[in-house]
Amino acid sequence: MTGPHPAVAATRNAVREALDGVDMGSRIWVACSGGPDSLALAAATAFVSRKEGFLPGVIVVDHGLTPESAIVAEKAVAQARKAGIHTIFVERVLVGREGGLEAAARKARYAALDSRADAEGGLTPHILLGHTMDDQAETVLLALARGSGARALAGMPVKRGRYVRPFLSLRRKDTVTACEALELTPWFDPTNEPDGGPRRSALRGVVMPALVDVLGQGVISGLARSAALLQADADELERQARSAIRETEPQAHGDEWQCDMLAALPDAIRTRMLKMIAENKGTGPLAASHVAALDRLIMTYSGQGAVWLPGGYEARREYGRLIFTHPLERFEHPDENGNPE
Amino acid sequence: MTGPHPAVAATRNAVREALDGVDMGSRIWVACSGGPDSLALAAATAFVSRKEGFLPGVIVVDHGLTPESAIVAEKAVAQARKAGIHTIFVERVLVGREGGLEAAARKARYAALDSRADAEGGLTPHILLGHTMDDQAETVLLALARGSGARALAGMPVKRGRYVRPFLSLRRKDTVTACEALELTPWFDPTNEPDGGPRRSALRGVVMPALVDVLGQGVISGLARSAALLQADADELERQARSAIRETEPQAHGDEWQCDMLAALPDAIRTRMLKMIAENKGTGPLAASHVAALDRLIMTYSGQGAVWLPGGYEARREYGRLIFTHPLERFEHPDENGNPE
Repeated sequence: MTGPHPAVAATRNAVREALDGVDMGSRIWVACSGGPDSLALAAATAFVSRKEGFLPGVIVVDHGLTPESAIVAEKAVAQARKAGIHTIFVERVLVGREGGLEAAARKARYAALDSRADAEGGLTPHILLGHTMDDQAETVLLALARGSGARALAGMPVKRGRYVRPFLSLRRKDTVTACEALELTPWFDPTNEPDGGPRRSALRGVVMPALVDVLGQGVISGLARSAALLQADADELERQARSAIRETEPQAHGDEWQCDMLAALPDAIRTRMLKMIAENKGTGPLAASHVAALDRLIMTYSGQGAVWLPGGYEARREYGRLIFTHPLERFEHPDENGNPE
Repeated sequence: MTGPHPAVAATRNAVREALDGVDMGSRIWVACSGGPDSLALAAATAFVSRKEGFLPGVIVVDHGLTPESAIVAEKAVAQARKAGIHTIFVERVLVGREGGLEAAARKARYAALDSRADAEGGLTPHILLGHTMDDQAETVLLALARGSGARALAGMPVKRGRYVRPFLSLRRKDTVTACEALELTPWFDPTNEPDGGPRRSALRGVVMPALVDVLGQGVISGLARSAALLQADADELERQARSAIRETEPQAHGDEWQCDMLAALPDAIRTRMLKMIAENKGTGPLAASHVAALDRLIMTYSGQGAVWLPGGYEARREYGRLIFTHPLERFEHPDENGNPE
């Protein structure tokens, strides 16, 4: 008796390991585009679910961005069924343009996945995503090109909340091989969009092959390994920054932070604190350039003016204190009737 | 009256800033290959030295690896003189093969620079190196391809000991432009070796242009900015690991470390401690794979055997303790006469 094809076995082991400790009877959703990664994931999830007593399901998100997107979604449904999963939903979403097409598509996709998982309920549902080591390597390289810090360079986590990525330790070609061995017919997106947009598509088509050519196949696992190491670093330094904020917050009356106290902290902690303090105010995500500008108010102050932050916030230094304000709030003095203007 | 060409001004500002706080009368050596980076560095150092009262000098290292290396060195001397520096030494070194040609060449080069600086003496000598932002970006990418952690990904520091790299914030093309503006004739190494070896050469010639093509020129400064952020992270986490070792070392009688104590520490601290503890024993530099194997003894122990480390050392777990030994030391029981065997 022969076992499954090694690539198929690898996908099953990866899913089993990622779902270690999940209760029998749990709902396990697979986000499936019909591509080789998510199709191999659906097949492996069907297999593991039978063994472990999970309730597997597939969610196909139709972004409606191309005329043939509905046909692609239908093909994904047929292949997911062939892969052994019979609870299948197609979620057609409306993708806006806010923050760019890629970001809007991602946002709509996750919202659809979340709301379907919520609607179906069940015991602690998980949503599995098919990202592979190759996706991870591309993510790290894109973050590096933006000049990001450890958190972004750490790439995608194996687990975050209900989302699980079992295939981050598998190569993309392994999922293609697994589909072949299982006689599944994945759909190959000629543009690799909207998942990653044109930049990622060009990175995948041009830069990664050049990198592998020059440095060997090990470069992909190298990038993934670096990402994992940086994830541990980012976790620890963010934990310390959060704890430093908790400890010093009582002294920061009315959101005024003592600059000399901040200046005495190590760079790696202080810059993370500044980012968290601002984001906790509601600025939305700060770029590295915002954090650097805030840090200059602390470390190299020479009378420079306010730093403009996303969401209409400002930060400025006054009498040795760092102060965050929202310009609109300045006018929120109650009028004669006690109402804000 | 017109000022210097902007590229020339940029090189001068970079040198001035890097040498801020250095005492008048200090010896400032420039390691010069004759290439555009180090030639522009020599010219900028000559200029800044006149203004600041430093004693500038040039050291040309002739690696003797090609038949024409002596001629290249002579050209570098002539150009360095034209750049305005008249204290010039050519150090011909013998490059071994230990650890590969690139590593051996680097080792021989730094030894020659150090010994010349030592021999000439003077007030706190500094040695300037011409590495640019492009070199930094390549270094980061090579470290990433190896799967390195934050320290290696942080690339080259601006200052380490007597070595200073004023040009890490300049692009390579700026140094070429500066040489042109100063009518200096740099030598372009057709192979870019031995400085970086064939991997770096291919990276420079193939991968970086593809990256810039796909992601734009900003990718180079992005890589350098990421490196700087990771440098701060690595500094802080290493400081904490050193301090944790100091605090727990008294309990580690005879180099036996309590595994449960180590296991309770955050990953980012524990893995760095394991690396430091081993390297302090004299193993030489540990690779990420060694550290991972050590960490498995602590975190996922299931009776596995000793971990082999560089330098003939071994680490194993016994009765909940991590023990480092050198196999030769096992036989160092005194014989009847009290002498080790």
